[in-house]
Amino acid sequence: MNSASVKQDAGFAANGDPRSQVDASRRRALLAAALGYADKVRGIVAQVLEHGVIVDAKPDRSLVTNADLAAERAFRDAVEADFPSMGIAGEELEPLRPAADFQWVIDPIDGTAEFARSLPTWGSIIGVFYKGSPLVGIIDHPGLDLRVQAAYGLGAFLNGRRLDPGSKAPLAEKERACIGLPARRNFNRVSNDAHVFDALVRAYPDFRVLCTCLTHTYAATGQLDASVEWDAHLWDLAATRVVIEEAGGRYACVRERVGPGGYKLYCAVFGRVDQVDRIAKMVSAHI
Amino acid sequence: MNSASVKQDAGFAANGDPRSQVDASRRRALLAAALGYADKVRGIVAQVLEHGVIVDAKPDRSLVTNADLAAERAFRDAVEADFPSMGIAGEELEPLRPAADFQWVIDPIDGTAEFARSLPTWGSIIGVFYKGSPLVGIIDHPGLDLRVQAAYGLGAFLNGRRLDPGSKAPLAEKERACIGLPARRNFNRVSNDAHVFDALVRAYPDFRVLCTCLTHTYAATGQLDASVEWDAHLWDLAATRVVIEEAGGRYACVRERVGPGGYKLYCAVFGRVDQVDRIAKMVSAHI
Repeated sequence: MNSASVKQDAGFAANGDPRSQVDASRRRALLAAALGYADKVRGIVAQVLEHGVIVDAKPDRSLVTNADLAAERAFRDAVEADFPSMGIAGEELEPLRPAADFQWVIDPIDGTAEFARSLPTWGSIIGVFYKGSPLVGIIDHPGLDLRVQAAYGLGAFLNGRRLDPGSKAPLAEKERACIGLPARRNFNRVSNDAHVFDALVRAYPDFRVLCTCLTHTYAATGQLDASVEWDAHLWDLAATRVVIEEAGGRYACVRERVGPGGYKLYCAVFGRVDQVDRIAKMVSAHI
Repeated sequence: MNSASVKQDAGFAANGDPRSQVDASRRRALLAAALGYADKVRGIVAQVLEHGVIVDAKPDRSLVTNADLAAERAFRDAVEADFPSMGIAGEELEPLRPAADFQWVIDPIDGTAEFARSLPTWGSIIGVFYKGSPLVGIIDHPGLDLRVQAAYGLGAFLNGRRLDPGSKAPLAEKERACIGLPARRNFNRVSNDAHVFDALVRAYPDFRVLCTCLTHTYAATGQLDASVEWDAHLWDLAATRVVIEEAGGRYACVRERVGPGGYKLYCAVFGRVDQVDRIAKMVSAHI
């Protein structure tokens, strides 16, 4: 975590789309493997919940628990055994084989603060990238028994039911948009961007602040019209773009830069096409 | 809804506490009846969900559905049959016997906007007041399978498990408070109080905006350290004070006035004693 070099770059700004080089049966197999790992992570977290969660603060004051660590280790062991030539990046441990074409990315518990408070809104995130483009994504919310999953070209699903891309159509004139936002604190973690939050809540006074990954899920299902993520790491967004796009929505990266520790930080907007365009334009004018 | 007179006043500012006049066995019986009505409301809403929700906008642009109306009618019929001399007030229909000592209050679906979007965070609220003081309260979240309930002097319970009043102790020095807030829009519905929201998110940058009644529940369980409600009607807060106080927390009403349609509007803060005191003081300086 101390190097100033970019430790991962399975980013969202690839030129062209290399994903068509990966045939559908391979994408399907990677999705099947990812679903198996998501089940494994669910099981490990449930075990920790049963035996007792231990919460620690990391040097950056964010939280980590014994569940995060146990789940990420088990995920890594499984990927290493099944796909020994592929790269692995995760929130809690150092990247492995960062130059490999295929990259597995995990955030074992996104929303550790909610997890530590027994709020059911946290999620586990798993993504697979190929040459920097997102191929497979899963956001799993065991506390709500919700799971969204997608693979490039194969559609997005909520608990096994295909998400209708039509739900990402523009809002009707009289409809009031409801969007998902991170808390104001998230805009000030790395730089002083709280004015962006203030502008967003003036333009969209009817917003919700849930655990961020749950706002990603709801932007994919259409239950929220769009959501915003701020100075997030790759693992926070590992599943979002492919899930949103396969659900017929738009994903816009409004800022990408190298942050503390040498990891890239992303600001992104995703959801209904019209709302994403409007929000991305507005946010871009403020940064 | 057109009269300028105050249509209900089962408020929170009673002089003295008349509740000890109602003996424990009567409080227990009223709680048992309220739990039966909550079950009935759950069943009716589930039926509507199965057969199709119809959403309409009310004159004030807030939403109402066929589920709200069916649930409130069934609740009223049941109370009328069981307690024909008691008063009834609810969000959707006119008050009955507003001068009676005992008042039943219902918000059949708090968070109709979430309900219409299939977000599981809405709740049904039932309260019983005696001479203006809250005797019994239930907040039921069928989508999350959560129910908090309390009766004066008999404790507060989450899904049948007693809530520990110790969880409302002051936060330790190093702990960061996380509070529940209404969206910024709620501060501007009746008067221009958005500056209060802005002040709150500066003082408490780590907040959540869920459906408001869910933030009441989490303030009672201790999963949030405190929550704020703004220009809410009696039915929005019908269960909150007794649930919070029986769970060992503090409930502070920071503003009470008559709003449009002749109904009282309340601004309140509730949760951990230290946080409520701090927030109430801060908010009071802004209004």
